[in-house]
Amino acid sequence: MNNFNFYSPTFFAFGKDRENETGEYVKRFGGSKVLIVYGGGSVIRSGLLDRVRASLDREAIPCVLLGGVKPNPRSGLVYEGIELSRKENVDFVLAVGGGSVIDTSKAIAAGAVYDGDFWDFYCGKPIEKALPVGTILTIAAAGSEGSPDSVITREKGMLKRGASGDAIRPCFSILNPALTQSLSAYQSACGITDIMAHLYERYLTNTEEVEVTDRLIEALLLTMIHEGPRVIEDPDHYEARANIMWAGMMAHNNSCGVGRSQDWNSHNIEHELSALYDCAHGAGLAVTMPAVFTYVMHHNVMRFAQVAVRVWGCQMDYAHPEVTAKAGIEALRCFLHSIGMPGNFAELGAREEDIPYLVDTLCNGNGRSGSISGFVTLDRKDCTEIYRLMV
Amino acid sequence: MNNFNFYSPTFFAFGKDRENETGEYVKRFGGSKVLIVYGGGSVIRSGLLDRVRASLDREAIPCVLLGGVKPNPRSGLVYEGIELSRKENVDFVLAVGGGSVIDTSKAIAAGAVYDGDFWDFYCGKPIEKALPVGTILTIAAAGSEGSPDSVITREKGMLKRGASGDAIRPCFSILNPALTQSLSAYQSACGITDIMAHLYERYLTNTEEVEVTDRLIEALLLTMIHEGPRVIEDPDHYEARANIMWAGMMAHNNSCGVGRSQDWNSHNIEHELSALYDCAHGAGLAVTMPAVFTYVMHHNVMRFAQVAVRVWGCQMDYAHPEVTAKAGIEALRCFLHSIGMPGNFAELGAREEDIPYLVDTLCNGNGRSGSISGFVTLDRKDCTEIYRLMV
Repeated sequence: MNNFNFYSPTFFAFGKDRENETGEYVKRFGGSKVLIVYGGGSVIRSGLLDRVRASLDREAIPCVLLGGVKPNPRSGLVYEGIELSRKENVDFVLAVGGGSVIDTSKAIAAGAVYDGDFWDFYCGKPIEKALPVGTILTIAAAGSEGSPDSVITREKGMLKRGASGDAIRPCFSILNPALTQSLSAYQSACGITDIMAHLYERYLTNTEEVEVTDRLIEALLLTMIHEGPRVIEDPDHYEARANIMWAGMMAHNNSCGVGRSQDWNSHNIEHELSALYDCAHGAGLAVTMPAVFTYVMHHNVMRFAQVAVRVWGCQMDYAHPEVTAKAGIEALRCFLHSIGMPGNFAELGAREEDIPYLVDTLCNGNGRSGSISGFVTLDRKDCTEIYRLMV
Repeated sequence: MNNFNFYSPTFFAFGKDRENETGEYVKRFGGSKVLIVYGGGSVIRSGLLDRVRASLDREAIPCVLLGGVKPNPRSGLVYEGIELSRKENVDFVLAVGGGSVIDTSKAIAAGAVYDGDFWDFYCGKPIEKALPVGTILTIAAAGSEGSPDSVITREKGMLKRGASGDAIRPCFSILNPALTQSLSAYQSACGITDIMAHLYERYLTNTEEVEVTDRLIEALLLTMIHEGPRVIEDPDHYEARANIMWAGMMAHNNSCGVGRSQDWNSHNIEHELSALYDCAHGAGLAVTMPAVFTYVMHHNVMRFAQVAVRVWGCQMDYAHPEVTAKAGIEALRCFLHSIGMPGNFAELGAREEDIPYLVDTLCNGNGRSGSISGFVTLDRKDCTEIYRLMV
């Protein structure tokens, strides 16, 4: 196991009706005027925004609204939010929504107290300070409610890039599983896939002797396999939603990823797809993961055999571990199909003829020089092969 | 799943040589003069105390020393520490040791800024403020490095009681697995048993639909079963020590216990043993757990069958689940025996004739009125039967 730091100071208020306590938490964490960031009209239609504002009202905390965050959130709205925050002199950013809303809020929070262009942070500049951020989560997926990460797409060149820093870690996150009951089966499946990807990206490590984090990751994957189909079958299943919601946070606050190298190449390869086609990140990952895993499997067959046996219940073929390893990848593919996720480029709306462009942006965009590193370092040829496996 | 709050803001610095960064963390968390609390001479002999003091010196942070904490730590030294803290005007308490040292430090930290008797907190008074506490952990066991809990024994009447509060949660904890390599096999086994007990106490729940936390607890139990025997066989096994150390923290910071009722009756029943006989807490738990589980098994046979199958690898007897449940308890008993833990009163140094006294103190001491509650509410007769099962 490698040396590491772990710091996850977010206060989580989990359960039914907890959004009614928003005002109390904003106050506790020092907010006196709030920018509320949200997406489309669903938080208005459901009455959630009203409940949140009523809670702020009870603490006499004024707020300013910024709606319109879209999936694969864009830099345009971030600039708008930064300007609004400064103009209105807010001292707290409250995200009401999913990963895109939270990531936009984090970007605004960092940008509002920075003199330069916020995009600098997405090109590697460390985030040293930010307005405090709170979240009210409406979809279990990105794990942004408990992470120091944010992913934003810059319109110019459609570059999808990430930034990270403890300053943008939410000070509180309200997780009410009932708020996720209104999601469609497709949205739910995208979230499930994203959570499973966060787990697989940590599982694929080159660090030895990491039994504790292996076991924790497997535990969360097993949870997703058990609970996922229940919410697809019955979107109103509170208990299944609750289990997925906590698993989604634990999958990405890094308690199960510490002390080990991680992969993140499935995310890198997928980001080009959702940047170009504006497909759902989870749907992109469903197509990406089996292709990546098939391509890199031989780098460490026993690792793939281990997850196949421990998570997917495959029988170990001791004479031919690669058979077991492959069976585990197939089990993942079948599971993703069973919850309604796409399995190839066509189902995703991607085009084979774009592969050279995807590879260019992936391997040579934003400061990369011909390859991406992770569990296996993948060069342009590798990435081309992987995209072809998805066709 | 029940509604819950989760808040675990401790900064963890994990890995080799991290104690050399102590000064930096004390400074980061606001300390300018430190009370260092430790146990016997081992931290002096090993050079650990010198390294810690050198690190404080580099940041020009003065310190005062308080040694002599014993296992099952006593209130006497807490009073001494409170007086010393006030006299020396320290603003930070640094624990260098295991759970007893950390729990003593927490009690001192709370007592130093409280006008009344610190024991009030161990009789149920909420802890509202305390000096900040940091820890340098030397044994993986109690989980106190990441918890808001402290257990102290009052000499008068030998009452062993707990207190809890976010104010005494460590602001940082340094976890260097190499520091645990000097522990004897017996001390290591006691720690392993304590960690497993923290997991079982959370596993035994009356809350339904808690798959995610069930799976996380099972993951940590599986880790202990894998890594435990490796450190008993080879005390210098850094990697096994590292896996156990992180599992020990995760087992008790409650990330795997949220949203569910918990038991804690094995701990309650054991506390009377270590209070009366001054035996190691882990050794007491090794004798207590199988007896308690055997006694309460029929309250929820399927829960015991589940842990038997998922953790201990027992075959499920679908026609007779109680056979599987019992096999899991036997597997636990055998495991604890295999790592050198006692299995009955005689091996622990306890006496059958003391049972009436143990039951009195347990069920009617410190404000209890004839029973203890948990997974199953146990009255005096139940507790008598359970102690008898240990003879």
